[in-house]
Amino acid sequence: MIIVLRPEATPAVADEILARISSLGLKPLHMPGSERVVLGALGDERVLAQLHLESHPMVEEVKPILAPYKLVSREVHPHDTVVQIGHVPIGGQRFAVIAGPCAVESRAQMKNTAQIVKDAGAVGLRAGAFKPRTSPYAFQGLGMKGLEILRDVGAELSMPVVTEVLEAHDVDAVVQHAACLQIGARNMQNFALLKAVGQTRTPVILKRGMAARVEDLLLAAEYILAEGNDQVILCERGIRTFETCTRNTLDLNAVPYMKQKTHLPVVVDPSHGTGIRDLVIPMAKAAAACGADGILVEVHEDPKVAWSDGAQSLDPAGFRRFMKELAPVVRAVGREMP
Amino acid sequence: MIIVLRPEATPAVADEILARISSLGLKPLHMPGSERVVLGALGDERVLAQLHLESHPMVEEVKPILAPYKLVSREVHPHDTVVQIGHVPIGGQRFAVIAGPCAVESRAQMKNTAQIVKDAGAVGLRAGAFKPRTSPYAFQGLGMKGLEILRDVGAELSMPVVTEVLEAHDVDAVVQHAACLQIGARNMQNFALLKAVGQTRTPVILKRGMAARVEDLLLAAEYILAEGNDQVILCERGIRTFETCTRNTLDLNAVPYMKQKTHLPVVVDPSHGTGIRDLVIPMAKAAAACGADGILVEVHEDPKVAWSDGAQSLDPAGFRRFMKELAPVVRAVGREMP
Amino acid sequence: MIIVLRPEATPAVADEILARISSLGLKPLHMPGSERVVLGALGDERVLAQLHLESHPMVEEVKPILAPYKLVSREVHPHDTVVQIGHVPIGGQRFAVIAGPCAVESRAQMKNTAQIVKDAGAVGLRAGAFKPRTSPYAFQGLGMKGLEILRDVGAELSMPVVTEVLEAHDVDAVVQHAACLQIGARNMQNFALLKAVGQTRTPVILKRGMAARVEDLLLAAEYILAEGNDQVILCERGIRTFETCTRNTLDLNAVPYMKQKTHLPVVVDPSHGTGIRDLVIPMAKAAAACGADGILVEVHEDPKVAWSDGAQSLDPAGFRRFMKELAPVVRAVGREMP
Amino acid sequence: MIIVLRPEATPAVADEILARISSLGLKPLHMPGSERVVLGALGDERVLAQLHLESHPMVEEVKPILAPYKLVSREVHPHDTVVQIGHVPIGGQRFAVIAGPCAVESRAQMKNTAQIVKDAGAVGLRAGAFKPRTSPYAFQGLGMKGLEILRDVGAELSMPVVTEVLEAHDVDAVVQHAACLQIGARNMQNFALLKAVGQTRTPVILKRGMAARVEDLLLAAEYILAEGNDQVILCERGIRTFETCTRNTLDLNAVPYMKQKTHLPVVVDPSHGTGIRDLVIPMAKAAAACGADGILVEVHEDPKVAWSDGAQSLDPAGFRRFMKELAPVVRAVGREMP
Repeated sequence: MIIVLRPEATPAVADEILARISSLGLKPLHMPGSERVVLGALGDERVLAQLHLESHPMVEEVKPILAPYKLVSREVHPHDTVVQIGHVPIGGQRFAVIAGPCAVESRAQMKNTAQIVKDAGAVGLRAGAFKPRTSPYAFQGLGMKGLEILRDVGAELSMPVVTEVLEAHDVDAVVQHAACLQIGARNMQNFALLKAVGQTRTPVILKRGMAARVEDLLLAAEYILAEGNDQVILCERGIRTFETCTRNTLDLNAVPYMKQKTHLPVVVDPSHGTGIRDLVIPMAKAAAACGADGILVEVHEDPKVAWSDGAQSLDPAGFRRFMKELAPVVRAVGREMP
Repeated sequence: MIIVLRPEATPAVADEILARISSLGLKPLHMPGSERVVLGALGDERVLAQLHLESHPMVEEVKPILAPYKLVSREVHPHDTVVQIGHVPIGGQRFAVIAGPCAVESRAQMKNTAQIVKDAGAVGLRAGAFKPRTSPYAFQGLGMKGLEILRDVGAELSMPVVTEVLEAHDVDAVVQHAACLQIGARNMQNFALLKAVGQTRTPVILKRGMAARVEDLLLAAEYILAEGNDQVILCERGIRTFETCTRNTLDLNAVPYMKQKTHLPVVVDPSHGTGIRDLVIPMAKAAAACGADGILVEVHEDPKVAWSDGAQSLDPAGFRRFMKELAPVVRAVGREMP
Repeated sequence: MIIVLRPEATPAVADEILARISSLGLKPLHMPGSERVVLGALGDERVLAQLHLESHPMVEEVKPILAPYKLVSREVHPHDTVVQIGHVPIGGQRFAVIAGPCAVESRAQMKNTAQIVKDAGAVGLRAGAFKPRTSPYAFQGLGMKGLEILRDVGAELSMPVVTEVLEAHDVDAVVQHAACLQIGARNMQNFALLKAVGQTRTPVILKRGMAARVEDLLLAAEYILAEGNDQVILCERGIRTFETCTRNTLDLNAVPYMKQKTHLPVVVDPSHGTGIRDLVIPMAKAAAACGADGILVEVHEDPKVAWSDGAQSLDPAGFRRFMKELAPVVRAVGREMP
Repeated sequence: MIIVLRPEATPAVADEILARISSLGLKPLHMPGSERVVLGALGDERVLAQLHLESHPMVEEVKPILAPYKLVSREVHPHDTVVQIGHVPIGGQRFAVIAGPCAVESRAQMKNTAQIVKDAGAVGLRAGAFKPRTSPYAFQGLGMKGLEILRDVGAELSMPVVTEVLEAHDVDAVVQHAACLQIGARNMQNFALLKAVGQTRTPVILKRGMAARVEDLLLAAEYILAEGNDQVILCERGIRTFETCTRNTLDLNAVPYMKQKTHLPVVVDPSHGTGIRDLVIPMAKAAAACGADGILVEVHEDPKVAWSDGAQSLDPAGFRRFMKELAPVVRAVGREMP
């Protein structure tokens, strides 16, 4: 850790801080420059956090050298983690497509859509029973009833199901019905939920928050791993920027960046990431090309009557085209797809 | 609501949509332009949401005319709402300063800091017992024990206390200890929490999320009001932008904008909003000047040993200067301050 | 165009505005709703701009129906434009790679690098002679001397050269030396420069500004076409967002979005777009996968001694790997590459 | 400067870099940590820039200790610079209001508006003759004729005039007609223009670009000072963020931050900064409260017929109210206003 002192800091301030660094068992360094005094601390700088040097009135800036996350880091765990959702591996040689409607609307809708996506090659089924919605006047999901429908349809078609859990309190119920949990963008820093999910041994897809830097996402994953659950899949789903032609700005740069920094699998959600049906196929192909391990995609049997997010859902023909166009790109980067 | 059709939409599509608008009891309008057909619907467009016209493959864009929120709107409720936190009114003639440490660290620290801020003129006491932290390795708050300390200190000094609640599950416990709840930026769209708080009759300070547009904040407040609790105070505390010289970008434009659109009181948190101690005083003055109803501010008896957020906390002398510099600005805009 | 009046607007205001719409030969529409009066204007709404209705104190909002650009629009010109840079077509069946150093540093460096990229399959040569630099203390380019070196090296190797022009005043000189001009991100709204380039018949690569919405980029291109030069190639090169792990956020969503809205070719610059060498190859593959017509990429014979932008430059071995990995993705989307 | 090596860097790499640091006359430092080797360089780190260490394949990150700007820094020049625009000082005890229409439209409009703002207390006159416009179909200004009108009206009323210069080529002409130049947000990194303005001795208002960090703005100012012109006034006028309720996000945090870092005066433009007439007065008051030295504000004799930017212009009554409400806030922070 590097500590830059304010220009007006006296030698006594430097001595005081150096002594505090020593007292923690780290090696202190004194680097008096022409315009600033810079101090250093060699050793595991995470223990330095307890000194709160950034609060010191004579400290101008604290520059950490190491990343603040550990368990998710590829430096600690060099080999790719493969997360098993039911019988489907995420993060290995095979590229996974997990598809389904935004929300469970009825048993018939769910079954029909599941059959369509399975026939076209999807390996997992996704749908929401609890829906986080910006407006209190929008459809909020079928709740437990939706969860049961989803579980039944998944079982009938032998497709592992992924569904969102909104609250720490609901985790126990949801793990009974799903092969994989999902933590949505708005809950990425709901730390109680992260901890509760961390205490299960169920895989979880953790979506990047709309204002989250990649480092924030990795730290949120660290919460889950720190509780003992290492079955975490990271999901890029768009960030908020000034651009308004897309609903969010899908940040694919995060995919190869995260693949370098972490051993966890990374998937991409081009449906929420762009909010525009016509961009889903090209951005899914781009995601595969830059190293994603899979895609989450919204498909509705008839988007124009969908209860939510219809504008970004593919229809059955659209999903078949999606699979057909995606496969050659997946193979071009040396991965497999059914 | 205005519905713009795609260039390739046929007259039959327009007829179909016009019929669906009529079927809901709204007056349909047909506006064939030279390059696009535009449809309109006159009446309460919120009922139109159920048609999900934005999902229609032949619809290019849906442009709502009315704001999506209602109960929080000044059009529905023209007069300023004054929220009563204990004996302290927020939103009327008096400008309120609510101060305290980031976190409860100990009974002694809490009592000492409370006395300091009370003596300098603060009317409310703030501190966190449950702390949402980006890193799992950072201090997470004293929990229930912190809550008890806070309640006791508030009672001793006759200062109403404000504290954050992190989970729907905790609401019942926290309302026993606090005069006012706080929903933090990371939880602004934790809808279960919004609903749970909406079912109490305890005032709540709702902080704007880091990626939240003002409209999103107003819709989040709408969740609370829709459950029956109209004691909501909105709080601007900085958004995430590309600027890195401040930790967040405190968006004071939102203050006068919200004062025009909603009847709810608006306060500002310059401590989290900037993340920099030296900017707290000038930005508090700016907030008062542009119409805020009060300030939330972090004060620590000794910031250089604070367990969290020390870099943005004022020390006792700093807080006295804060009050002294703020008062003339508050009076210059026709408000009162002790 | 849709004009939403303020709630307090009187019928007389509506009548006045409707009369002004009629006076321009457009068909006025009156849509009195329950909470707002909405007016419409049917016809070429671009002529309405002269009314400046958004300035009217009783107008709440003006919502245009049509895009503000015209000549660049695919609605006006449905077929893909192919821009010819020397003998290299951009925008057709072939995918183009244009490579070279950030800056011309010397004749030897330029010749060596050009030979390397040519041998590996690049079809065009890029390098800067005039460098826009954030700091006045950074290397500013060799100027005219650099331009001559670039022209000579391009001629020797039969590679068309692309180079940046910084000022309207320099356009005449630069067109003598280059097959294609480049307008950099910082100059995307230097309207004098756009007009000057529009008056030449030399192709131009127009880079998206760091704060530019896609619509702003298309309007900047419209400036060039409006002056008579339709040889414009759009370039996505990253926008500024809150994410700091990359220097910019390469916004690939813009690629398929623009391919739908405009007939102009679209290329991508993953070097500036990410600022990180290790992300250049994956993001170039992603760009090809989502429909880009080519790539601009920085290659230096020895990045560790580059005078500028070395951290994002590929070395010769890196560029050979770039071409080798890119080719299968290009073919997977049905395009050709040498 | 701190140089963090990649985990795989060998001791030989560290030795090589340390030798390069020594060769420049700086003192090298070797700090081998448990997970990374960190190197340091003591001395004027700006000379290190020529080593381009960030390009080295074995360097993970370079962390500068000092700000990259120098002449604009308060460390080099501790006392406030007061810039004299004609007889009006900017940056001292007096708070300055510079007002006028967005664009010169006619002699009558200009004269009338100038008289109105003068009578209400404005000390400077602003208007554009050359207008940078996003769309080529929008009004582009009267050009030289507008400049002459502006000069004449300023002379008649003894008001110094401020006007924008768009191109290096135009600087000579514009300095003949104006007491102060303005460089607009879109040209903040038009380095040729910065240099040309730097070679005059005419004061200049430099507006922050929409994607510019404060550090970028200070470096742009450094370009002007480096050419010998220290009469620079910085202007905050809004940045681009995801918020859409305002046209830009006026970033007032930048005001006290810049007042701490630089000796140059700082003014604020709430008209462009918000794009909304109703926010101009409150945000001007906020700007004064947080330490701005003055305000640039758009006033039109009749905004509803303004040729540009009418939606953000104050009308004469609005401007009188602006001055009346602003004055007490200015005095509350210890400044003077007529």
